[in-house]
Amino acid sequence: MARQAGFPSVSADDILSRPMFIRQLDTPALLVDLDVMERNLRRAAEYARAHDLRLRPHTKTHKVPELARRQLELGATGITVAKVGEAEVMLGADPPDLLVAYPIIGRSKLERLAAVARRTRVTVMLDNLHAARQLSDAAREAHVEFGVLAEVDVGLGRTGVTPGDELVEFIRGLLRLPYLSYEGIGFYPGHIRSLDNDGLNQIEELDRLLNSVIERLRREGLPPRVVSGGSTPTLYHSHRIRALTEIRPGTYIFNDRNTWLAGACKPEDCAASILVTVVSTSRPGQVIVDGGSKTFSSDRLAPSPEPSFGYVLEAPGAVFTRMNEEHGYLDARKAGVELAVGDRLRIIPNHICTAVNLHEKMYGVRGDRVEAVWEVAGRGKLQ
Amino acid sequence: MARQAGFPSVSADDILSRPMFIRQLDTPALLVDLDVMERNLRRAAEYARAHDLRLRPHTKTHKVPELARRQLELGATGITVAKVGEAEVMLGADPPDLLVAYPIIGRSKLERLAAVARRTRVTVMLDNLHAARQLSDAAREAHVEFGVLAEVDVGLGRTGVTPGDELVEFIRGLLRLPYLSYEGIGFYPGHIRSLDNDGLNQIEELDRLLNSVIERLRREGLPPRVVSGGSTPTLYHSHRIRALTEIRPGTYIFNDRNTWLAGACKPEDCAASILVTVVSTSRPGQVIVDGGSKTFSSDRLAPSPEPSFGYVLEAPGAVFTRMNEEHGYLDARKAGVELAVGDRLRIIPNHICTAVNLHEKMYGVRGDRVEAVWEVAGRGKLQ
Repeated sequence: MARQAGFPSVSADDILSRPMFIRQLDTPALLVDLDVMERNLRRAAEYARAHDLRLRPHTKTHKVPELARRQLELGATGITVAKVGEAEVMLGADPPDLLVAYPIIGRSKLERLAAVARRTRVTVMLDNLHAARQLSDAAREAHVEFGVLAEVDVGLGRTGVTPGDELVEFIRGLLRLPYLSYEGIGFYPGHIRSLDNDGLNQIEELDRLLNSVIERLRREGLPPRVVSGGSTPTLYHSHRIRALTEIRPGTYIFNDRNTWLAGACKPEDCAASILVTVVSTSRPGQVIVDGGSKTFSSDRLAPSPEPSFGYVLEAPGAVFTRMNEEHGYLDARKAGVELAVGDRLRIIPNHICTAVNLHEKMYGVRGDRVEAVWEVAGRGKLQ
Repeated sequence: MARQAGFPSVSADDILSRPMFIRQLDTPALLVDLDVMERNLRRAAEYARAHDLRLRPHTKTHKVPELARRQLELGATGITVAKVGEAEVMLGADPPDLLVAYPIIGRSKLERLAAVARRTRVTVMLDNLHAARQLSDAAREAHVEFGVLAEVDVGLGRTGVTPGDELVEFIRGLLRLPYLSYEGIGFYPGHIRSLDNDGLNQIEELDRLLNSVIERLRREGLPPRVVSGGSTPTLYHSHRIRALTEIRPGTYIFNDRNTWLAGACKPEDCAASILVTVVSTSRPGQVIVDGGSKTFSSDRLAPSPEPSFGYVLEAPGAVFTRMNEEHGYLDARKAGVELAVGDRLRIIPNHICTAVNLHEKMYGVRGDRVEAVWEVAGRGKLQ
């Protein structure tokens, strides 16, 4: 919590030529504790190995090709993206294969995706034949083949075909389309948001549901080679979902306040925080910091209606009650420390994925030292 | 609502060489109706002229130097920014002066702000002497002068000095600091969120409060030359706040669903929308579009707890009930039209400022035609 005083300003290019410290960074800045991040990555990779699961992390969380490469080095067998723009950026990590967990619609995106498919194997997860026909056409025109996973709705009610006859018909439709290779099924269990008793019951239900889906598909002569699913909250319960062959956690690389409060990590497993500066204390008991919704995103706590936007590492009793675009409001009455203009604080955001998307750079730190500066190259790749 | 079919993909560079149409744009894309935008800009400029008010728009809403230049051409007398990075970007509009409506803390930012002050007159609005002393030191070192506005809290309870003795003492402190020129007072009436009876009463209270503040400052020999305030909801009521000399609306250039539902504009005054594509209809009565919180921001409606994230122009009965990062959920049961995968929809976001911040490009359109493509140069300038 050093005051920002007379330290010289530094640019990202200085990093390799001389040591750099957190106190030299201007705020707001997105920090990643490298020791915690590496521990998170190793733990997930070991878990996946122990349970004979492929680990295919969703890179939307970090959006940094260098970090995708690290995930691959530590045992990931492929990566996941949501957008074609992310796929293009993530080619920088030289992935052996790439799953686009999103239905890609429209000629422009499909042409770009076909170009990606010339450089690595691409699989698309989708839930409708309109998208599948477009994908097949694009593959034919570009002389490539796409893998496809039939997306199944296992309870979130977002995308995905309802299990049963509809799914069987959809997969039969996929098999009729040339230049597509049916690999299996995929799903996102986003309805399981915390690991309380309800959540654990939902995991058991998911296990039963998938077993019955797969039994049906086998009966129909459509056995899935790949059963791809998972999320960060369910990550370390994946072995209980016996049909799974592949898991796709994203947030696990950093974790966040949502993960922690969902019971899916400990506070010390949160690797990412945002460094901010106190800019006003004009109202007694309140502190204003230089990060608001354009720095943290206005995502609320997933499992709770509590209007609180982050956890202040240096003042755990302070409540992050409100945000405007560039202002964060801390209720400092129970902060336990006196906060003054110029003080610097690190805050763990509720949702790290949307927060990362707002930052141009990410700083990898160990202790006080900044060891890496990454461009968030996949940031804002909306298309 | 044309299906995206075999149209060739276009790049922004094509714009000057040949005609371009909305149907050629990939989604999600941020569209600005130029006729509506120009009407919004002219109307505010005429209002300001009629009431002898300086108009100093907050450029955080659009973040595009070309649009700041247009505001200046149409009658704005200066511009406002929140961050030093925005000030740097907005030098591209050649503003005659520039107000930073945010306390700037820390040597690195202040050095950069002093560099801006060598190119145009810079005024900073602040509420504490810590920030003022740093600003004075930076001005001395860089051989520049900064204007200062004492920020007054008129009811939002965010930043700003409480009116009364504290404000008098603060301004006396400002006057003792060299290289700073005391210009007057500034405020942001963000507590006035809609133009219902409560809002109109709050405007009357604000008028009385400011008159008493100014009377006191005159008595103390500290008369403000500038009284700078205002917001988009209060824009066309500024003449009722008699002490005002300058208004700083931001959102008014585009307006948004918040402005509309606050009673501060009509739906047809909303210039900005986000073009999205339907990517899944797997769940009956629900439509998934390819924009979520990374495209719209998760900002809710300001004056209401209603969890609805935008207004669908082509299907006004559809309710935008939920978002994930890349998924928007529309409850289509009352949409009034049949929506299919591949359909394209324009959605007016709740809060256009945070939505613009998520886009790399902004497309200026008239009818079906794309007439301009701007880089959102001030996007993500967090520091």
